[in-house]
Amino acid sequence: MALIECVPNISEGIRTDVVADIVQDLRGIDGLHVLDVQSDPTHNRSVLTLAGTPEVLRTALPRLCELTMAAVDLRTHRGEHPRLGAVDVMPFIPLEGATMADCVALARLVGAELGARLALPVYLYEEAASSPARRNLEEIRRGEFEGLADKMRLPEWAPDFGPATPHPTAGATVVGARMPLIAYNINLATDRVDVARKIASTVRMSSGGLRYVKAMGLSLEGRPVVQVSMNLTNFEKTPMHRVFDMVQREAARYGVTVLESEIVGLVPQAALLLAAAHYLQLEGFSARQVLEHRLQQP
Amino acid sequence: MALIECVPNISEGIRTDVVADIVQDLRGIDGLHVLDVQSDPTHNRSVLTLAGTPEVLRTALPRLCELTMAAVDLRTHRGEHPRLGAVDVMPFIPLEGATMADCVALARLVGAELGARLALPVYLYEEAASSPARRNLEEIRRGEFEGLADKMRLPEWAPDFGPATPHPTAGATVVGARMPLIAYNINLATDRVDVARKIASTVRMSSGGLRYVKAMGLSLEGRPVVQVSMNLTNFEKTPMHRVFDMVQREAARYGVTVLESEIVGLVPQAALLLAAAHYLQLEGFSARQVLEHRLQQP
Repeated sequence: MALIECVPNISEGIRTDVVADIVQDLRGIDGLHVLDVQSDPTHNRSVLTLAGTPEVLRTALPRLCELTMAAVDLRTHRGEHPRLGAVDVMPFIPLEGATMADCVALARLVGAELGARLALPVYLYEEAASSPARRNLEEIRRGEFEGLADKMRLPEWAPDFGPATPHPTAGATVVGARMPLIAYNINLATDRVDVARKIASTVRMSSGGLRYVKAMGLSLEGRPVVQVSMNLTNFEKTPMHRVFDMVQREAARYGVTVLESEIVGLVPQAALLLAAAHYLQLEGFSARQVLEHRLQQP
Repeated sequence: MALIECVPNISEGIRTDVVADIVQDLRGIDGLHVLDVQSDPTHNRSVLTLAGTPEVLRTALPRLCELTMAAVDLRTHRGEHPRLGAVDVMPFIPLEGATMADCVALARLVGAELGARLALPVYLYEEAASSPARRNLEEIRRGEFEGLADKMRLPEWAPDFGPATPHPTAGATVVGARMPLIAYNINLATDRVDVARKIASTVRMSSGGLRYVKAMGLSLEGRPVVQVSMNLTNFEKTPMHRVFDMVQREAARYGVTVLESEIVGLVPQAALLLAAAHYLQLEGFSARQVLEHRLQQP
């Protein structure tokens, strides 16, 4: 059975009763797993983690949009996080038995439905993008809701689905397909934030580092510790252990050691198995050897 | 739901049709997972890996004994592996949601039933042992089927359940509870078997090494490679990464490097997560953060 994850970000993080009502409704959908809900009042944004078969998600995500559009009006929405829509972004992510192609197909189906049935302009991004210029979420979102009407007048920003002008209260939604994202932080036993910043700039793609790493360096409040805070956007191609080893080696160059690392939120099992197999130098290992994996087979 | 694993070893590894018939019958038991079946003709022995709830296993294991006793006559059985019974040994192992205490209780229930209903003498071992002298399987099995009648005449070898004399064709069965066993081999990039033997003797408990490691050194046929072949009998207390690091360090002392390692058969997910968390120096990590784990929750 193909299982797909979806992590919709909605532009409401203050009125927790509104978010709770939407989540409550989603929990009533047969076969839909609501894995996690995180609301951030500063960002005024909530991140839902859902999972299900393509069929279940095809029902659930338009429903989520409908409910969110009824509750959120971007004309009065304020928050620190940039946003283009009431349902701002909606990535589909392959889990067990599903491929990236399944996720791209699902993104197109759901995007087409949002455009046609809810009169919502939809942009496809990342693996589902209709052109290389639309792969990057930040590019699509630049100008935010407030600049969207002007942006959509440019021919290169015609939406992939739906009307040619913004939805008056819900803006536009960015739908796509990507690998699971791992929020991975490495703490260094020093108070020198410049070391964390230099290492972040060494490991991240944007300044010449590893292809699937985004990183920044920061101080941890109240502790004499600095952090290399990262998003790993493809753990198969840029695995956790390679990132850890590179940070450790770069830190040594400044006479600094790694204190600890942390995974924020959820992580696919495969990412940790890759790390174990790497450090233990396992040959010929397969996830099929994991006892719990066998129990799940029919 | 408490899930328990059981790895019965039966004294038949040549007549594969006999083993197939028994397995076929077990597959008909509702709720029983038959995870693996390995037959070894040299040992004339088969190892079954089963899993289920305590209730399911309480039905399945006596059934397995009944079928095996009808097919195997130890009076004519020959094989390299030492054995005491037609069903030689039957360990219960805690999986998700189950404790060692659950396994000990189940071993006693099943042992009592084998004694009463099948007239089979039963010895309890490892965590289920009725005295420290009976913890060790090798001690109970010493003398094998052929020496069992004499051994049972000694007061200290009265069985825990069942008749005071051996079953005429099925001998006795050893029932117990233990942690999952991981068959873990580390290959060294050298043809010097003395190095593998010295390292094996350094890491194993019996000669002063780690508490939950059994090890021997051997040559791999057809390759200029030697192997430290190990059983890890408690991966929580003696984790894989500690064993790997110790073998690697000892090998360096002889100017030898680790070529690779391998896990033979199944491994609990937790053992690999422990290794990943160790090498990545993960702080505050919980298996609840594994995405697939969340999907299994109701």
